[in-house]
Amino acid sequence: MLMVVREHDPLGRDVELFRRHLYTTGKVGPTAKGSEGAELVDGLVVREGDFKLVKTRFSAFFSTHLHSVLQREGINSLVITGVQTPNCIRQTVFDAVALDYQPVTVLFDATAAATPDIHLANVYDMKNIGVATPTLQEWSESKA
Amino acid sequence: MLMVVREHDPLGRDVELFRRHLYTTGKVGPTAKGSEGAELVDGLVVREGDFKLVKTRFSAFFSTHLHSVLQREGINSLVITGVQTPNCIRQTVFDAVALDYQPVTVLFDATAAATPDIHLANVYDMKNIGVATPTLQEWSESKA
Repeated sequence: MLMVVREHDPLGRDVELFRRHLYTTGKVGPTAKGSEGAELVDGLVVREGDFKLVKTRFSAFFSTHLHSVLQREGINSLVITGVQTPNCIRQTVFDAVALDYQPVTVLFDATAAATPDIHLANVYDMKNIGVATPTLQEWSESKA
Repeated sequence: MLMVVREHDPLGRDVELFRRHLYTTGKVGPTAKGSEGAELVDGLVVREGDFKLVKTRFSAFFSTHLHSVLQREGINSLVITGVQTPNCIRQTVFDAVALDYQPVTVLFDATAAATPDIHLANVYDMKNIGVATPTLQEWSESKA
């Protein structure tokens, strides 16, 4: 299990330009390192043997060593969950496809967007580039 | 003007894994270098002073020297057109935002998708990350 978490410099020096205003002096940015916004939600824990990767952009591959870690471990097949579908999930998925990971799977009901319409539109586009999008139950049964 | 064109090795050695079957022996892949599929549509011409960049993945930034070319020229502001909205356009746009280009503009009616719904859903997601999406006319008038 590889956990990808967004954490930013409290002064915002590694934040996207379009979000930098959220990290100006006196503010605690939405996912500033060490702040509540950077904590995992209840129920998610980085356990012994898990790998925690910190990123600062939507795609987990963007300016991180994720690709080299996966290659080193001989991993070609990815199953992706999390939020939100249009941003972090989709950008990670499209980069994974561009990097020739196969199969790339997104668990339909283990990711979400601001509205169901946004979620569905993004799932549709991902299916169109060969991504599998089973529900958690369908995927679990296929592994049984 | 920078023209980004997809061209692939006729043997498919630089094609995404999920499309490799389109480039097997005896087939002419959809955008094989030198084939009709790699030509520009009527009306588009690479003119003197334009820059032609060849890419092999959705994003024009993926494994190309686009970022270094733009940085060298001191270009921070991008206006993006072409097809299709969900794939090449969107992936290029999201990478441009991740790379802190600003402003990033997509001309609403100078890009397109398989259906109007797909186009609109992708424009919606791009607006949500701060991308401007004027029509060609609106943009032209703002430059006048």
